[in-house]
Amino acid sequence: MIEVRELRKIVNPNGNIYHFLKKSNTNDKVDGEVYFTEVLYNKIKAWKYHKKATLNLSVPIGEVRFVFFDLNSNSFIEKIIGENNYKQILIPPKIWFGFQGLDSNKNLIASFSDHIFDENEINRKDVSDFSYDWSIK
Amino acid sequence: MIEVRELRKIVNPNGNIYHFLKKSNTNDKVDGEVYFTEVLYNKIKAWKYHKKATLNLSVPIGEVRFVFFDLNSNSFIEKIIGENNYKQILIPPKIWFGFQGLDSNKNLIASFSDHIFDENEINRKDVSDFSYDWSIK
Repeated sequence: MIEVRELRKIVNPNGNIYHFLKKSNTNDKVDGEVYFTEVLYNKIKAWKYHKKATLNLSVPIGEVRFVFFDLNSNSFIEKIIGENNYKQILIPPKIWFGFQGLDSNKNLIASFSDHIFDENEINRKDVSDFSYDWSIK
Repeated sequence: MIEVRELRKIVNPNGNIYHFLKKSNTNDKVDGEVYFTEVLYNKIKAWKYHKKATLNLSVPIGEVRFVFFDLNSNSFIEKIIGENNYKQILIPPKIWFGFQGLDSNKNLIASFSDHIFDENEINRKDVSDFSYDWSIK
């Protein structure tokens, strides 16, 4: 009756990644992938750029600062969401973004990607490659 | 470019509920619903029974005890999962179940239901209606 299945957890010093839903474990009901990303206090995960994938994000635990870099306007956009300002952020492809944990306890990002993870679909830069002031006031 | 959308958060003294994904906010890519349920330390949410929906659950934050009551065998089954024992539990319809937060900090259940929430699809009983020993050892 009750089935318990293995799920992948990827350990990372800035915050672990937890797999959750895919086509294969939802009877084709999820066309894409749902996963969770922890980001510890003051830790930064940046910069990432999806060539094709659109992301839907929310933060049900803690608070996270997202920073987007728009290549067209050469400008940054900052959005802070979390359990006390609970919203969804929609990130279309071809935008550089990064994020930082703001809660000294735990911060968890829930992500839906409409593409199954594929490293070839992602561009990456080092956090220092765009000069953004990440200091927490 | 970046879109920020409202998402529903339902405040509950035993732990809040956070909506996340539906057909309507994923361009029809999720056929069902993804939501998060907090359950505070030692708090119990029980008992619930889905007539039609199959649930996929995981616990990316904290640790949760799930208890299932099988009407056929008249017996309980207990499963404990969490961030340190990261697995997926698949609950078919027509099973009574409840759960309890085991981590004194935060416990978060991620749920995928293959049916959009519908109170008519759910049966509910009071926690005392099945006598299970929920004491934490």
